Amino acid sequence: MISGVYCASATPVNADLSPDLGAITAHAQTLIADGCDGIALLGTTGEANSFSLSERRTILEAAAKAVGPTRLMPGTGVNALPETIELTRHALSLGVTRVVMLPPSYYKGVSDEGLYRAYAKVIDTIGDNRLQVVLYHIPQVSNVPIGHDLIERLVTAFPQTVVGIKDSAGRIENMEAMIARFPGFSVLAGADPLLLPLMGMGGAGCITATSNLVADSLATVFRHHADPAHKAEVDAAQARINAFRDLSNSYTQIPAIKAMVAYRHGSAVWTRTRPPLVGLTTAELETLKTRLTAIGASVKDLAA
Amino acid sequence: MISGVYCASATPVNADLSPDLGAITAHAQTLIADGCDGIALLGTTGEANSFSLSERRTILEAAAKAVGPTRLMPGTGVNALPETIELTRHALSLGVTRVVMLPPSYYKGVSDEGLYRAYAKVIDTIGDNRLQVVLYHIPQVSNVPIGHDLIERLVTAFPQTVVGIKDSAGRIENMEAMIARFPGFSVLAGADPLLLPLMGMGGAGCITATSNLVADSLATVFRHHADPAHKAEVDAAQARINAFRDLSNSYTQIPAIKAMVAYRHGSAVWTRTRPPLVGLTTAELETLKTRLTAIGASVKDLAA
Repeated sequence: MISGVYCASATPVNADLSPDLGAITAHAQTLIADGCDGIALLGTTGEANSFSLSERRTILEAAAKAVGPTRLMPGTGVNALPETIELTRHALSLGVTRVVMLPPSYYKGVSDEGLYRAYAKVIDTIGDNRLQVVLYHIPQVSNVPIGHDLIERLVTAFPQTVVGIKDSAGRIENMEAMIARFPGFSVLAGADPLLLPLMGMGGAGCITATSNLVADSLATVFRHHADPAHKAEVDAAQARINAFRDLSNSYTQIPAIKAMVAYRHGSAVWTRTRPPLVGLTTAELETLKTRLTAIGASVKDLAA
Repeated sequence: MISGVYCASATPVNADLSPDLGAITAHAQTLIADGCDGIALLGTTGEANSFSLSERRTILEAAAKAVGPTRLMPGTGVNALPETIELTRHALSLGVTRVVMLPPSYYKGVSDEGLYRAYAKVIDTIGDNRLQVVLYHIPQVSNVPIGHDLIERLVTAFPQTVVGIKDSAGRIENMEAMIARFPGFSVLAGADPLLLPLMGMGGAGCITATSNLVADSLATVFRHHADPAHKAEVDAAQARINAFRDLSNSYTQIPAIKAMVAYRHGSAVWTRTRPPLVGLTTAELETLKTRLTAIGASVKDLAA
């Protein structure tokens, strides 16, 4: 099973909007030092869909050099199946065997049959038994939900390959139902506040945005949730996670996460986003700084 | 102004799902013979987002050889701006100067500022004064509407480049408001039933799916809508267009359009789609054949 705390890492960019490979490398090392089991780079928080295939390969290569390929679980699902295949093969070529695979998401209202064919085409074409695919359910962004009947078909057809799901929809009932229906299937929460309740019902861990900031607390929840001796520590960790999460979500989430990472590292690079996302305004950055301090964050001044 | 009848052409694929370049070429020639002013290939109906960048280039090159670059108006907008730039530059390199540009559409609820920056980045980076961009408003699929204030900013900043919009949302009131607010801006209907009313209020024409089948009728409406002497002919043409449109929309639209083209050309190649779209079932193909005959279509048996 794929289990643990994975960071949906943000992607810093230079002034010309190209990926800042130095900052990517340093942040990846920080996340592992924080206690992340792995880094789920190039997801929604990572603005993956805003980077070209070439840039995505470069980012993955830099991260693999920084922390080793077995720590990485990149997003490789795009709209065009040949490109999903290309990105997934590239990951495998680096020794990165676990990927989070978004379904094609341009067309809406597509059938389970169509989504099954899409995933099957990718997995069959790649034909590599090292590959482990985590499905990606984020209907509020993709508008293409991954339903349970589709999962059933996929785990039946590809039991060694389709091994888990990232559920970012935020409904614990959906995660509970998948845990009950698919034994051995890794259900990973995409929403930070759900890690503790999810672990209590047999979940596998999380892939979240707030772990760019408080992965140490997420690791505390993950490792000690079942131990009554650690209850106070675990509850405090989950409360800290929720405070960071609530703060990011009081702005536009992804730019806010990046701005919070900027204050963590003391680097203005992190305040930038790629269009169509827009970074926080100077005024927002100021209030964010005050509010970060108020929830106990260590805040560094932003250097260029 | 960009005006006339443009076909949102469908893209035939081989059994291995690669583009069938021979069928693409032949169909492009048919569309021009039907009376299309141009072909807006590689749009939503063309399943463009399901093809890789490399395949999109190949398809555009084949079409340009078949009918000449000045007849083409391809879709070049994808989620990652560097790839939108790459596809648009490729079009320009072939002498194709008009493109329909979808905004980045993975992220939802993005601001006008973010969309403005996205389009501006693409246009500024390309820096080619031959380029003419038609914006693409198809919120029911992209979930990223193109609002009037955004258009105002874009036409003010890039008056020679941002010259029109394809409005596929199906609301004539929206088209009327854009015609009133932006003189000289080409408002093209994405919905076939709206061509005749749109022309009556100063619209520029259409880019539609049904023109894969009845472009001759669309051309009749476009050329003669203002001439009372042709009223009966124009009304009959619009009624024929609507009958084909209603038939396609009683199935899943894009697979149905492809199946209707299959019966037009007598070629089973056209019944295939790329996942996540699914072609019509054998039973659906049978009923479609009967219903096509009932609305007066010339139907050919499907050869492999």
